[in-house]
Amino acid sequence: MSSLWNHNISISIFGESHGPAIGVVIDNLPPGEYIDLEKLRQFMARRAPKKDGTTTPRGEQDLLQVMSGLLNNRTTGVPLCAFIQNTDTCSKNYLDLSRLPRPGHADYTGAMRYRGFNDVRGGGHFSGRLTAPFCFAGAVCGQILERRGIYTGAHIASIHGIADDVFSRTHVTKEDLLSVREKQFPIINDAQGARMQEDIRNARKGGESLGGLIECAAVNVPAGIGSPIFDGLENTIAQLIFGIPAVKGVEFGAGFQVAEMVGSQNNDPFYVDENGHIKTKTNNHGGILGGISSGMPITLNVAIKPTASIAKPQETVDFRAKTNETLQIQGRHDPCIVPRAVPCVEAAVNLALLSHMMDYPNF
Amino acid sequence: MSSLWNHNISISIFGESHGPAIGVVIDNLPPGEYIDLEKLRQFMARRAPKKDGTTTPRGEQDLLQVMSGLLNNRTTGVPLCAFIQNTDTCSKNYLDLSRLPRPGHADYTGAMRYRGFNDVRGGGHFSGRLTAPFCFAGAVCGQILERRGIYTGAHIASIHGIADDVFSRTHVTKEDLLSVREKQFPIINDAQGARMQEDIRNARKGGESLGGLIECAAVNVPAGIGSPIFDGLENTIAQLIFGIPAVKGVEFGAGFQVAEMVGSQNNDPFYVDENGHIKTKTNNHGGILGGISSGMPITLNVAIKPTASIAKPQETVDFRAKTNETLQIQGRHDPCIVPRAVPCVEAAVNLALLSHMMDYPNF
Amino acid sequence: MSSLWNHNISISIFGESHGPAIGVVIDNLPPGEYIDLEKLRQFMARRAPKKDGTTTPRGEQDLLQVMSGLLNNRTTGVPLCAFIQNTDTCSKNYLDLSRLPRPGHADYTGAMRYRGFNDVRGGGHFSGRLTAPFCFAGAVCGQILERRGIYTGAHIASIHGIADDVFSRTHVTKEDLLSVREKQFPIINDAQGARMQEDIRNARKGGESLGGLIECAAVNVPAGIGSPIFDGLENTIAQLIFGIPAVKGVEFGAGFQVAEMVGSQNNDPFYVDENGHIKTKTNNHGGILGGISSGMPITLNVAIKPTASIAKPQETVDFRAKTNETLQIQGRHDPCIVPRAVPCVEAAVNLALLSHMMDYPNF
Amino acid sequence: MSSLWNHNISISIFGESHGPAIGVVIDNLPPGEYIDLEKLRQFMARRAPKKDGTTTPRGEQDLLQVMSGLLNNRTTGVPLCAFIQNTDTCSKNYLDLSRLPRPGHADYTGAMRYRGFNDVRGGGHFSGRLTAPFCFAGAVCGQILERRGIYTGAHIASIHGIADDVFSRTHVTKEDLLSVREKQFPIINDAQGARMQEDIRNARKGGESLGGLIECAAVNVPAGIGSPIFDGLENTIAQLIFGIPAVKGVEFGAGFQVAEMVGSQNNDPFYVDENGHIKTKTNNHGGILGGISSGMPITLNVAIKPTASIAKPQETVDFRAKTNETLQIQGRHDPCIVPRAVPCVEAAVNLALLSHMMDYPNF
Repeated sequence: MSSLWNHNISISIFGESHGPAIGVVIDNLPPGEYIDLEKLRQFMARRAPKKDGTTTPRGEQDLLQVMSGLLNNRTTGVPLCAFIQNTDTCSKNYLDLSRLPRPGHADYTGAMRYRGFNDVRGGGHFSGRLTAPFCFAGAVCGQILERRGIYTGAHIASIHGIADDVFSRTHVTKEDLLSVREKQFPIINDAQGARMQEDIRNARKGGESLGGLIECAAVNVPAGIGSPIFDGLENTIAQLIFGIPAVKGVEFGAGFQVAEMVGSQNNDPFYVDENGHIKTKTNNHGGILGGISSGMPITLNVAIKPTASIAKPQETVDFRAKTNETLQIQGRHDPCIVPRAVPCVEAAVNLALLSHMMDYPNF
Repeated sequence: MSSLWNHNISISIFGESHGPAIGVVIDNLPPGEYIDLEKLRQFMARRAPKKDGTTTPRGEQDLLQVMSGLLNNRTTGVPLCAFIQNTDTCSKNYLDLSRLPRPGHADYTGAMRYRGFNDVRGGGHFSGRLTAPFCFAGAVCGQILERRGIYTGAHIASIHGIADDVFSRTHVTKEDLLSVREKQFPIINDAQGARMQEDIRNARKGGESLGGLIECAAVNVPAGIGSPIFDGLENTIAQLIFGIPAVKGVEFGAGFQVAEMVGSQNNDPFYVDENGHIKTKTNNHGGILGGISSGMPITLNVAIKPTASIAKPQETVDFRAKTNETLQIQGRHDPCIVPRAVPCVEAAVNLALLSHMMDYPNF
Repeated sequence: MSSLWNHNISISIFGESHGPAIGVVIDNLPPGEYIDLEKLRQFMARRAPKKDGTTTPRGEQDLLQVMSGLLNNRTTGVPLCAFIQNTDTCSKNYLDLSRLPRPGHADYTGAMRYRGFNDVRGGGHFSGRLTAPFCFAGAVCGQILERRGIYTGAHIASIHGIADDVFSRTHVTKEDLLSVREKQFPIINDAQGARMQEDIRNARKGGESLGGLIECAAVNVPAGIGSPIFDGLENTIAQLIFGIPAVKGVEFGAGFQVAEMVGSQNNDPFYVDENGHIKTKTNNHGGILGGISSGMPITLNVAIKPTASIAKPQETVDFRAKTNETLQIQGRHDPCIVPRAVPCVEAAVNLALLSHMMDYPNF
Repeated sequence: MSSLWNHNISISIFGESHGPAIGVVIDNLPPGEYIDLEKLRQFMARRAPKKDGTTTPRGEQDLLQVMSGLLNNRTTGVPLCAFIQNTDTCSKNYLDLSRLPRPGHADYTGAMRYRGFNDVRGGGHFSGRLTAPFCFAGAVCGQILERRGIYTGAHIASIHGIADDVFSRTHVTKEDLLSVREKQFPIINDAQGARMQEDIRNARKGGESLGGLIECAAVNVPAGIGSPIFDGLENTIAQLIFGIPAVKGVEFGAGFQVAEMVGSQNNDPFYVDENGHIKTKTNNHGGILGGISSGMPITLNVAIKPTASIAKPQETVDFRAKTNETLQIQGRHDPCIVPRAVPCVEAAVNLALLSHMMDYPNF
């Protein structure tokens, strides 16, 4: 299924960028959960385009309207559907894309998959705009997790080589996560953040775009969540993370660094802390062993490629005529989607955690 | 489901390391496919322990017996079950693990997940031994793919920092893949391979273990395989790859390097080649755009952590008594599982590709 | 998942009777299929309330608006979402239902399932109104099937003991199916239909409701569609049919009559017809053997209970106070839902057939 | 998937009648559940052929060996695989079936589905023998349900028109269910049972077979189990019941009788009993309203067709040569599978109930 994720919780995402609406159906949420709509709005605002020159200027509406599954702000237990009607679409610039695919985009592969019948306007169903319903679903799950003490947070770890500070893999706290979530530009080290923003504005002026890295952590996940082999937390989180356009890699804990390690370096020694809790002294395992949570913070990094749409002329083909061509994309472009991808990564982790939590006997 | 992957093809893996048997049920294979059992045996031999001091000395049987779904060496179309009866198990060394979890292992998290009822002997269902049925399933799928011209191959990209050469992301061929698959120690550059083997033997002597990196590629995958959002090739491959124990990261194409790039570097220009085929000049996208194959080689890297079981003394806890303890693991240990994980990575990619291919109209 | 059916095609139904909207997301439809919206409207009109005293007088809007997945009237291949905004809701009469469950309704069981958080107004997610998106999905699938020559049709087989004629299980034709589908009151024998309508109007006057039977057939289904054990056509059709509220039984071919038969009566002899096609002389198997289509017409009967909402006083309980009470339901009621359930049964069969057809190599 | 049922619990059935083995993988059982193997053996014995002339004389082994998922007789929480190696197979009589399909059997439809590659010997994967792993899975679930007070039982309601007594839909007890389960020939009224057995023996002598009806009930299911629309208890039970070969119909509660009823007859009045429990005075709803359990006994009837294999000559075709032929089946045949289908129906209900129970907060 292209756009259905079917786990204990299922989410079915629909919509094309320039079609009538985009949205999501979330099934099997626990009944009776209070959903704070103002908090949802704040979460969605983190994904929304900014007016500071660091994002697309498209004036998107971002708060989804709830159509079902919520009564008096509480989940009813039946499917929760929410959607946004599309506005401010400007389709005329996209007509060529059905012949001249943008390098780095799904224009060509989408046409091959759907035999030319897919909607190419604005990227259609492949548009980054579809991360709005995805974020919405993750934000709903996040509120349910927070009621149980579990907090997720992410920040820009680097953009185009400019690095932020990192979370402590062993001691990151709920407060660390909340503090970065409150910022307009989600970064720990504001000085580095200012350098990044400058770099993004320069990229925009130069018709360029920039890639980056996102670090995410979740705290207070109890030990014992997840399953071996195909249904571990890593499998599920990775599957969801690659649902965010532009992601090209994901790693947990020490991630790719483990390739250079020896066992006695990489193995995280267990100890009993002063409260009688079992912990590990290091957290190279990123809070997950054998697919199952250890009780340590869950940590991951996600690689985001530069936005494919750039203003510079690019080599492409007319894939119907089979000729080599040059493409110059007109109009609006988003010089760096990394900041807006930050809440998407959190959303993916929230979805995975809540869904797996539902296997937990005391949930 | 802990051990069920349910896509167009489903695989259900069962067994515990020291239980009566381990195996797999593969459902929905196309009927009438010839399966060459000798080729299967060769594939499985790549995963089997070697006698050269670089792997575990456990004398495992590795060729699974087929119990159903195959008649006259052709798939019947109904579930194919294969299993191995366990032999050469030596359980007495494992009894402590139900109290003293090995750092880096799933002993503790498994006990939390299954409330102490899981079989800890030999790692139980979390054992690397379960990769045998996983490989078997991938080997069956590989034969069906090769009949359609699609070849997958992987090699050790590095061990403990010693690097092999790399595949050409744009021009890797079937022959490149076959040539590395034929080697006992799956490496492109044999001189580097010799250095790695030496390093592994030293690690074994020192009671240590080593991590590494695996590079995998698949060629001749037609454009248009996969789906957007949750069911793309990247999602599926990642979900399966994290089913291999010890994997801590996965990246496609340029992977984590995209984080430092600008768009005009990262975007792969399209062109029409001399045969009228549409290709890209570079392959930072690793053959996948928007979750869908582009026709370029599919390439990925996988990070493997050092084997958790090492002979050195380690700090752990008695998680029932809640006391700090020291653990020294007796008996056999595998100083580096990276070589044996190579066919597992191929298997995961084969499973993902064949399953997605079944959506393809001309399959 | 309460309201998700996940097969080759998936449908996710959402909405509550008196909430903002109801609708459906259909995923994995083949791309490029022309959808005739006027034909869809006609299908939906068959489910809509009539003004002749035989149905609920609720002035429901019944044509769903398409939000995604359709471009220039052709499926794009990505999720098709359609919904109806609810109007003409009148919720005040329903408030008691959160304490005084209607006999025969899901008021009590829904409250137990969702711990009292479900929306009881108008039956909420349990309302017969949710058959509108269900029908819509089935109507879309029906158009795709008809393009491949497969036609489905259903009629009222009986209401409150008044019987219609029956389809010929061996020789029912596309024309037979179309002829009954064109009628306002879906019946073969119009004289019997007139008696039924009279009976329904009397029931309405008496504050009563009536049960009935629906017969459905599908023709030109090629042999070889379906699978053994859990994924046969009977399993799938039955699973979907019980998604229509008020269904209490389903039988295929000779159905419950087989219980009184001997083998030589029940077994349908094969023969080669004048065109070289393999057929059976009788069709007690209802076109399905071992879960797989035989090429003969697929036939089934579905039992529909009388609408639970009646105007007569009924015994119930206050399930919070645990006291015995009497309930008299005010307002509109639907004396017989059998006619409106007819297109729902067709829809279920269409969904099952199209989804299974997608496994078929030449689809 | 042909033979995978994937719900909260999944079962994957494999094997062909004359292949090396048949078996089942059950995933996601709760950990720590004690499984009494002697009770399992007793359950399986109810499905086994008898030596009294009423069943097939095939000397099948029926107790499956457990390969994984069980340690010290307790579930470990990971997949439980069990299988039987096939013995006493006699394949030579089946060779013609690849050309001359048996009327009423899946020989023809299986060949169409699997393009002639399926194993036809003994019916292959379509054999009634595959109900052994199905029963095994249901028996395991039954023990877990009984630990929570839930009991399931079934009996022959009729064979070839000879009727047994029926369970009280409102007052059937655990003792009623256990009493019929203990009998060799599962019947309430032994006098009627004797008549049935005589009729079966006569059928066998005459080369005939007999159809029948099975009634099943489950008691002490708490209110609130199940879900609306596609995932109700009726949907799930029906989907599983049609996994038993020869089933042609299923009905719940009053079933097909509701078609002749008026609402005030069919609606079951609620009342508070002397212990403060909410019950209904009648149980036409069969314990399920809106897909969700009401706390009343769950009751259903299942129609079983006469065994397709009979000794009398039958008309068939050579479906490769496209000629009309006569078939006379040699060797063993089972004159009535209704008694052996009784535990299969229980097994299906057990699987559905346990799987749905796992959504229940206090499970």
